[in-house]
Amino acid sequence: MTDFGLGDGNAGVMKGVIAGITPDAHIIDITHDVSPQNVPSGAWILATAYRYFPKNTVYICVVDPGVGSMRRAIAVHAGDWFFVGPDNGLFSYVLAEQPVHAAVLLSNSTYHLPHISSTFHGRDIFAPVGAYLARGPAEIFHELGTSIDSITLQRLEVGFATRRGPAIDAHIVHIDNFGNLITSIPLDMVPELFSASQVRIIFPPESMRIEQRRRFFADGPDDGQAFIYGDSSGYVGIAVRNGNAAKTLGVGYGASITYLTSA
Amino acid sequence: MTDFGLGDGNAGVMKGVIAGITPDAHIIDITHDVSPQNVPSGAWILATAYRYFPKNTVYICVVDPGVGSMRRAIAVHAGDWFFVGPDNGLFSYVLAEQPVHAAVLLSNSTYHLPHISSTFHGRDIFAPVGAYLARGPAEIFHELGTSIDSITLQRLEVGFATRRGPAIDAHIVHIDNFGNLITSIPLDMVPELFSASQVRIIFPPESMRIEQRRRFFADGPDDGQAFIYGDSSGYVGIAVRNGNAAKTLGVGYGASITYLTSA
Amino acid sequence: MTDFGLGDGNAGVMKGVIAGITPDAHIIDITHDVSPQNVPSGAWILATAYRYFPKNTVYICVVDPGVGSMRRAIAVHAGDWFFVGPDNGLFSYVLAEQPVHAAVLLSNSTYHLPHISSTFHGRDIFAPVGAYLARGPAEIFHELGTSIDSITLQRLEVGFATRRGPAIDAHIVHIDNFGNLITSIPLDMVPELFSASQVRIIFPPESMRIEQRRRFFADGPDDGQAFIYGDSSGYVGIAVRNGNAAKTLGVGYGASITYLTSA
Repeated sequence: MTDFGLGDGNAGVMKGVIAGITPDAHIIDITHDVSPQNVPSGAWILATAYRYFPKNTVYICVVDPGVGSMRRAIAVHAGDWFFVGPDNGLFSYVLAEQPVHAAVLLSNSTYHLPHISSTFHGRDIFAPVGAYLARGPAEIFHELGTSIDSITLQRLEVGFATRRGPAIDAHIVHIDNFGNLITSIPLDMVPELFSASQVRIIFPPESMRIEQRRRFFADGPDDGQAFIYGDSSGYVGIAVRNGNAAKTLGVGYGASITYLTSA
Repeated sequence: MTDFGLGDGNAGVMKGVIAGITPDAHIIDITHDVSPQNVPSGAWILATAYRYFPKNTVYICVVDPGVGSMRRAIAVHAGDWFFVGPDNGLFSYVLAEQPVHAAVLLSNSTYHLPHISSTFHGRDIFAPVGAYLARGPAEIFHELGTSIDSITLQRLEVGFATRRGPAIDAHIVHIDNFGNLITSIPLDMVPELFSASQVRIIFPPESMRIEQRRRFFADGPDDGQAFIYGDSSGYVGIAVRNGNAAKTLGVGYGASITYLTSA
Repeated sequence: MTDFGLGDGNAGVMKGVIAGITPDAHIIDITHDVSPQNVPSGAWILATAYRYFPKNTVYICVVDPGVGSMRRAIAVHAGDWFFVGPDNGLFSYVLAEQPVHAAVLLSNSTYHLPHISSTFHGRDIFAPVGAYLARGPAEIFHELGTSIDSITLQRLEVGFATRRGPAIDAHIVHIDNFGNLITSIPLDMVPELFSASQVRIIFPPESMRIEQRRRFFADGPDDGQAFIYGDSSGYVGIAVRNGNAAKTLGVGYGASITYLTSA
């Protein structure tokens, strides 16, 4: 996963580096279209994806506005997986959701390309480290560099939903390919979503409110009205059937919302 | 093939699910940029692609505006290949062009993920079913669920070209990356394309007509004029050399055309 | 690498053809988003990528505005790699940078698809030839067709940087996903980039000049000012921290620049 886009050869070059080290690696793209330098957005996309990959998958993640500066390059063994990338909060959800078995600073240049540029650590450090990890054996993890205490790893305030009396304050943390707005409210935080007599999501600046609920996109008329639904990412979402909720509502990434329910 | 785009991790997550079931599967993307929820466009893209893949390829196809509703989830064994996806017309060309050996409803949850969301059957049903089919043995096909009669499968009216006296009525069914307009007229329906003394394609609303013919893009001057050619998809196309026919002509997906020829 | 985009199935179809010939081929995308029909841009992207792939990698490259015309279809064995595509200058950097061991015209139809369209040689000629080359043995190279003298291969004037007294005249040859402007000035042509007392890049038409230098993106304030840096491609670049230099400066692909330095 990177924010390099697919318009130039950067993602491909990283795969070339991997293929040179671990020729039989199976390489899968999560996405290369993370909004450029948007670490919170990249963290969220990784959060919705990583559980669905096999044990011992190595995730190479590069959304790295601080490349070349003092920000640390790390590898983390958390849950059943390995994560390689910059220590800038990109792994915040993983660190919050999984037990961290070990973390290392990528200080051993044996596992890097011979020449390290100051702007493309994805190619020069993260891809080769990921390729060596994927090839194994597992002991390589501790040869990658100095062990670090996982408590020192950077964590973002990623718009986690917080209760405030009867309300939940949260944010729009993702807009998907259909224009659906994904909130930071986990579905298991609102078990009453479909059973409560009334639910409202309010966008404070405009006092705009969404009250309609639907269990799936085709559940209800094709009427251009925004509705609340349970997104497959595991979070509360807002959609318009056969439409684009982000455009219809004029709402973008990061917007504040308040969720209210009446039993 | 999906309409998920590559901006979030959905296509990648499907591959993660596949890799967990069939680690040595070779996964190839046809495209994930089918126009969102545009089933006819997805059906056409699949039609131009499927013949070029090896026997026993499993196609996982998700353009699925009805996900979560009563639309059926199916697998079809047609020609030399297997097709998995929603029963909404996405396989219309395949069903018209290939013998159908068998079709099943994906009713056996043994081959699905344990938890089925109401909005992402690509991840929860189609990807695991496709992965099991790719792993084989072939007998698995009949364990996926109840057999269904192929005559009950949904078929689109996909703008098939129809003769009306000396004319052929058809539509623009695709616009490619170069802005070339692809019509629904198969090349083998118009063997006289280059031998007739005159050929015209008329866009009725504007009375716009294209008469020039070229055998390939560089066959003729770089003059900004639109011309008729035989597209590599096997259909009649309209292009502008080193230009964008869709923009030059102001024509979009679905436009009606009439083809006329004079011996 | 192609200019087909990912919106239709063309890149996928090429992979289907490859999988039918060499089922265990590892297929990696450099990019399919080369600016349509822009051979110089494709040549540059290939130049920044090819060195990072393993020995004997086969590059199938299709930016081919002359498809169907008399332009030649070729395979070239240069350096440690094989290159397959049109003879239109796409391999200019490779030919300038690597020893050419052999070159052939793709005249032996045994290694093509049975039916050759006039507009999609990527599918019908280049993909199957590349797949046979990847499968080996190496002797296949000379069976692909007639040997040709490498001196006859097309080369572009690709905006190579040229010295003019104390100045270097060059061009913007790429704009990356972050809007960074990449020049045609190799870093090893300007060893004084960071040690000279002053460096200027001038855009003649607007007399716009950039003088600030930074060693990496986060080296300096987030002030919206454009600066000169050493890009990971090995060329001099111009960037704006957390911004888009191409938009900020209003500069596009192909712009002329002059580089001046004072010891």
